[in-house]
Amino acid sequence: MTDDAITRAVSQLSRLPGVGRKTATRHVYWLLRQDTSAVRQLAQALLDLEAGVVECPRCCDYTDGGLCPVCASPTRDGTTVCVVEQPQDVAAFERAGTYKGLYHVLHGAISPLDGIGPGELRIRNLLERLRSGVITEVILATDPNVEGDATALYIARLLEPLGVETTRLARGISVGTEIEYADAASLSRALEFRQRM
Amino acid sequence: MTDDAITRAVSQLSRLPGVGRKTATRHVYWLLRQDTSAVRQLAQALLDLEAGVVECPRCCDYTDGGLCPVCASPTRDGTTVCVVEQPQDVAAFERAGTYKGLYHVLHGAISPLDGIGPGELRIRNLLERLRSGVITEVILATDPNVEGDATALYIARLLEPLGVETTRLARGISVGTEIEYADAASLSRALEFRQRM
Repeated sequence: MTDDAITRAVSQLSRLPGVGRKTATRHVYWLLRQDTSAVRQLAQALLDLEAGVVECPRCCDYTDGGLCPVCASPTRDGTTVCVVEQPQDVAAFERAGTYKGLYHVLHGAISPLDGIGPGELRIRNLLERLRSGVITEVILATDPNVEGDATALYIARLLEPLGVETTRLARGISVGTEIEYADAASLSRALEFRQRM
Repeated sequence: MTDDAITRAVSQLSRLPGVGRKTATRHVYWLLRQDTSAVRQLAQALLDLEAGVVECPRCCDYTDGGLCPVCASPTRDGTTVCVVEQPQDVAAFERAGTYKGLYHVLHGAISPLDGIGPGELRIRNLLERLRSGVITEVILATDPNVEGDATALYIARLLEPLGVETTRLARGISVGTEIEYADAASLSRALEFRQRM
């Protein structure tokens, strides 16, 4: 039978992205079959998120207090900053493992339709970081879509008078793609920016 | 960057059935973008599950204390008990809306491979309910699979000496099925138990 606590848990879980009522119901009944401590651990982990995760005062990535591990590391190259939209993008670069500079997380992209203007992003913090004069290159690694491109263009224009080198991630066909199935835009870009062998 | 609180929340969420690390990560970053009260509400709803949901002392369905709404209802037919595997099955019957008797939730099916024997199920509680002599029919509505059939057979044998009518849900082709795509087992059953028009 529908029960208040069950209904409430289903409603709350179905707010998660991509989780409908059916999936949420399955989760709730699964949780009810687990022992008490398992449910408590999950709830506590969620509460810890809220209490324990803050933005790094320098790069705005999520961290548990103070500078994030990348900003705090003495071995990273402090002259290069890679500007990304989301904390997940930092994780993607770190998984790739080849980038040794610092990051700056915007926490979004300019999207007038969603009511997100430059003021909603951490652009002001980026400009403040550049004031120190240590940073010589800003890599704009926003997503290769309309919002990401608009954001990159906006930031590039702001940086122009500051004299730092501003670059954008290369676009082309992704590694492992079959040309037969590559999308037209990527293929056009790959052709346009072809490299000498 | 990976962070302790984030990693822990991802691990906890990825324990949910059908949720992998990628989905859990997406959930966590979504939660981090929500305001404080949203995360607290979700955590509280999960804690309430653990604290507020108990088994009905009569039918073993989940309830928030005391008899469940079905058992407590004076309009339900107390002579018929529909035995189901899971609380979700009760919800399915209630959605169908045609059944007016009571339920009994076994909380599983006999499955020796998963280490679930009759002792793990609420079979003893069912036998106790039958002692009162009010119940005249037990409908075995376990799932139409090996475990459900074994459980139904096991309970049917236990009920034989008690003189209550024991029935099993009809099996055949489901409503809305195209015969072309019906599975062989259901089609064979539908043929075997064909009804006069």
